[in-house]
Amino acid sequence: MTAPPPQRIPVGAGPSESTAWVGSGLLGEAGKYLVSPSGRFLLVSTVAAVAAVEAIRRALGPSLLLDLAIDDAESAKTLDTVARIADAAIAAGVRRDDAFVAVGGGVVTDTVGFAAAVLLRGVAWNAIPTTTAGMADAAVGGKTGVNHRLGKNLLGAYHAPAAILVDPAAAATLPDRDYRAGLVEAYKDAWIADAPLAERAARRLPEILARDEAALLDLLAGSIRVKAEIVASDPKDSGRRRLLNFGHTLGHAVEAAAGFGRLRHGEAVAWGIAAALVLSRKRAGLPESDACAVRAVLAGMGPFPEPERDPALLNAFLSRDKKATARGLASILLARIGQARVDETIPPEEWLDAAAIMSLS
Amino acid sequence: MTAPPPQRIPVGAGPSESTAWVGSGLLGEAGKYLVSPSGRFLLVSTVAAVAAVEAIRRALGPSLLLDLAIDDAESAKTLDTVARIADAAIAAGVRRDDAFVAVGGGVVTDTVGFAAAVLLRGVAWNAIPTTTAGMADAAVGGKTGVNHRLGKNLLGAYHAPAAILVDPAAAATLPDRDYRAGLVEAYKDAWIADAPLAERAARRLPEILARDEAALLDLLAGSIRVKAEIVASDPKDSGRRRLLNFGHTLGHAVEAAAGFGRLRHGEAVAWGIAAALVLSRKRAGLPESDACAVRAVLAGMGPFPEPERDPALLNAFLSRDKKATARGLASILLARIGQARVDETIPPEEWLDAAAIMSLS
Repeated sequence: MTAPPPQRIPVGAGPSESTAWVGSGLLGEAGKYLVSPSGRFLLVSTVAAVAAVEAIRRALGPSLLLDLAIDDAESAKTLDTVARIADAAIAAGVRRDDAFVAVGGGVVTDTVGFAAAVLLRGVAWNAIPTTTAGMADAAVGGKTGVNHRLGKNLLGAYHAPAAILVDPAAAATLPDRDYRAGLVEAYKDAWIADAPLAERAARRLPEILARDEAALLDLLAGSIRVKAEIVASDPKDSGRRRLLNFGHTLGHAVEAAAGFGRLRHGEAVAWGIAAALVLSRKRAGLPESDACAVRAVLAGMGPFPEPERDPALLNAFLSRDKKATARGLASILLARIGQARVDETIPPEEWLDAAAIMSLS
Repeated sequence: MTAPPPQRIPVGAGPSESTAWVGSGLLGEAGKYLVSPSGRFLLVSTVAAVAAVEAIRRALGPSLLLDLAIDDAESAKTLDTVARIADAAIAAGVRRDDAFVAVGGGVVTDTVGFAAAVLLRGVAWNAIPTTTAGMADAAVGGKTGVNHRLGKNLLGAYHAPAAILVDPAAAATLPDRDYRAGLVEAYKDAWIADAPLAERAARRLPEILARDEAALLDLLAGSIRVKAEIVASDPKDSGRRRLLNFGHTLGHAVEAAAGFGRLRHGEAVAWGIAAALVLSRKRAGLPESDACAVRAVLAGMGPFPEPERDPALLNAFLSRDKKATARGLASILLARIGQARVDETIPPEEWLDAAAIMSLS
């Protein structure tokens, strides 16, 4: 049986335009979809996704200028790794018209994308996410970056990949915990802007958890379409694009407070969403039935590890959030499933209160 | 006597728009010209320009969030220094709407500009060059970056400063060798695109070397206008903007071959121009009278130290030039003073031959 042709989803516009290809069986035909002005590729991948990397290696063959493995752990998402990638690329003779191919989770795509952004002041890159989190989120919108010891993604650039290949086969060896945590971001996109998708994906949660490719692709493609629509309307992350940060205000703090790597990013976002539901009920008129539906999906993907709830600890990380401006935190709340909005009037204290009582059951 | 009001030169367009202010007495009124959305500034300066920094410090007063000194040596233009600036800014509580003020030579403005580009994925910055090289070149056009052991500016970003303050007083303590070397870039701009400016500035060379402010400001403002016009027509450095690299193809190689810091950048560019004159005579129909006029100005600014001429050594650095693409080097040649053009047909060997015979007398 032949796989149906992939969906082609244009993401962004102008200099930050990407094309996301979403479908089964893309890896073996990577050469058809990946973009390089020179035709030469610099492959940077994680060893964790060995089967996917092997398929891509075969597909690209002699056009590979570099074949570098990097660590996919959050602790490797540093300026040092960017320097290592740049060193290897320069030693390999990289030119401005070559292109990177990042194969791995969000750590790999964020770090390689940032290296591509700053090497020779910008060369092209392609993203092949091997995690559900990466498929739903990491490469779309052109955000790249690395962590700083005081917070996540404090150093980075906007540099959209030329192409993003989303093929469920790339996540074949992904551990179940990561598979589930990654789905949180995909559902999040449905919750902020696409009620029918949210309803459909809630109903198909058991199939999705069983790794049914069609059900998963429906959620992922829908999630990417939501992001594409929002990012296109706000490429510089100054307005509507902040909606994509639903669950991230407290989520980042919870993740950082746990120590990077203790909670999966998606798990932290799930808790952040739980807190945002509390505030959405109180401040945005979210009906309890909607809050309950969201919580039910999150509970179905869990159970997730208990988060840090100590207000003093969380507050230290909240106030360092890079989305903080002089006006205060940009909080994302839901008025209904499918209708998110930005609220800049919520003081950190209310998030800390919500963190104390948030629940996923 | 009151200084005449500064010239206001808009540089670039859209997201990479800058305003260059060119005039005497700007430092003491820095608060009037520097841009910060929040009103808060992160000052990063070189100790070499202590008087200028002191004036700016007084002008900005309590709006200073950070006051950091960094080294202005080429050897400090590294990713490590970017990390140090980022560390200090994050520790000081930097927000997205704050702005950097870089006070120093090209090393400081390039490095701080790059730090501003990647911190929180981009905060605003302002440039106050304290060298003639910086006044003529470093901040205009939005190129920022740091060196790699294999070549100059291999890591960087396009991130234009919001404002650039060009005040001759900022260069008051600049050693004569640096003062002269920096002027090469200013004359270079005249040579590629403004014959009347080139003629005028050639005639006023003695006044300019004697640091006459009016004569210097005329050259600097003209040079910035040339760059502004070219950069506006090609913000991403893919076409016409390459004209600004006149003298840089071989210049970068000569500079790198000498070991960074042995030749001033402007001195290396002077040699690069000398080689470009040889090729321009041969390949672009440059009249000998024009070549002679350019050489006379360069000789008047010198004598400059002898460069590396060993073809094997130079070739290693030429082929790593980041402007090399699959099509080959982008060579900039003069057809006449004021008329430069890009030639992609010149093999590295011809540059090496020109390097063997180039002369500044």
